[in-house]
Amino acid sequence: MQLYSYFRSSAAYRVRIALNLKGLPYEYVPVHLLKDGGQQLSADYRKVNPTALVPALVDGDAVIGQSLAIIEYLEETHPETPLLPADAIGRARVRDLALGIACDTHPLNNLRVLKYLKHTLGVDEAAKTAWYKHWVHQGLEALEAQLAGSRATGQFCHGDTPTIADLCLVPQVANAQRFECDLSAMPNVLRIDAACRALPAFEAAAPGKQPDAE
Amino acid sequence: MQLYSYFRSSAAYRVRIALNLKGLPYEYVPVHLLKDGGQQLSADYRKVNPTALVPALVDGDAVIGQSLAIIEYLEETHPETPLLPADAIGRARVRDLALGIACDTHPLNNLRVLKYLKHTLGVDEAAKTAWYKHWVHQGLEALEAQLAGSRATGQFCHGDTPTIADLCLVPQVANAQRFECDLSAMPNVLRIDAACRALPAFEAAAPGKQPDAE
Repeated sequence: MQLYSYFRSSAAYRVRIALNLKGLPYEYVPVHLLKDGGQQLSADYRKVNPTALVPALVDGDAVIGQSLAIIEYLEETHPETPLLPADAIGRARVRDLALGIACDTHPLNNLRVLKYLKHTLGVDEAAKTAWYKHWVHQGLEALEAQLAGSRATGQFCHGDTPTIADLCLVPQVANAQRFECDLSAMPNVLRIDAACRALPAFEAAAPGKQPDAE
Repeated sequence: MQLYSYFRSSAAYRVRIALNLKGLPYEYVPVHLLKDGGQQLSADYRKVNPTALVPALVDGDAVIGQSLAIIEYLEETHPETPLLPADAIGRARVRDLALGIACDTHPLNNLRVLKYLKHTLGVDEAAKTAWYKHWVHQGLEALEAQLAGSRATGQFCHGDTPTIADLCLVPQVANAQRFECDLSAMPNVLRIDAACRALPAFEAAAPGKQPDAE
């Protein structure tokens, strides 16, 4: 398998954790989101993934974009070390938590949106940072309320083994901390982030450990 | 089952289509996103869904937020009229298409984001509309490229029966048309939208047909 990735992409980070947890070897193909006007926008990369977004996983004939589609695919084709619980209600809860980050938090704060705010809307640095922190807080506060309010929360977001929800939580917390968001009112989020990062599969997937890290 | 819904919510619209396609009866519980300062933000609704977002599905003890988590849950618990193909590569393609709308298009244009642009960033009406159209075009152009470039595209996004991808496409196109986005360069998107809307399950899920429609 080949993973088209950028070290700082939080969507790629999720997939790297999944591949590591499942013990699946892969070739890392770097796509630099800032160099050459954005290598993800190149004709060559669009041949791989016409959406011009990172990550993309190539597995034989299959080319899959969207981190959560990739992770569900890995879950179906490599069920060892499951990343979803066995029961339908548990699976729904994990997907709900994961999508809260993937749909309602991360998309508002990624590079292309921050660029639009700055270059097209002329938003200044302070207002751009406030935007970033606003959506991170909205998203992670909602996650904290979900984690605090459910008996299904364990050492990780759901029970005592990592699930897709944890794969989304850790990259989002890393981004939040890079932008100096105050997460002190989110004890469950911070506790689970620490529990995850103590595992080698998460540690090896971190941005700073990737071949294209700067 | 009870569905907490707002007639114009495109995420709720996806779930309504799924419930109709699977022939599952449900009670419609309206949550008005504009009245009372946003009923989704009320303490009562937060008891149902702590993320304060619509939709939420209640099925016995299960309370599920996030439209795609709800739809995957319905798919697992009511597999008749499948909304995902049987093969792993096909399932991955459908989820990839669906998440392209759910993560990369819709979240940038929903009500709370447009409100922030207007009230917090002081963006004028023209710039707000330009923002809306920019992200719709980015998202639907990517979808068009994916549909045009794959032999798996059929009468619908994937083959000749509706899948989760179609459940995301139709509400997004409806939104785009409400904001007068020009979709003429997206023949596959428009063709599939028309094929879907010809089906009673899609038609009955449309915003104008809901009990809280205005």
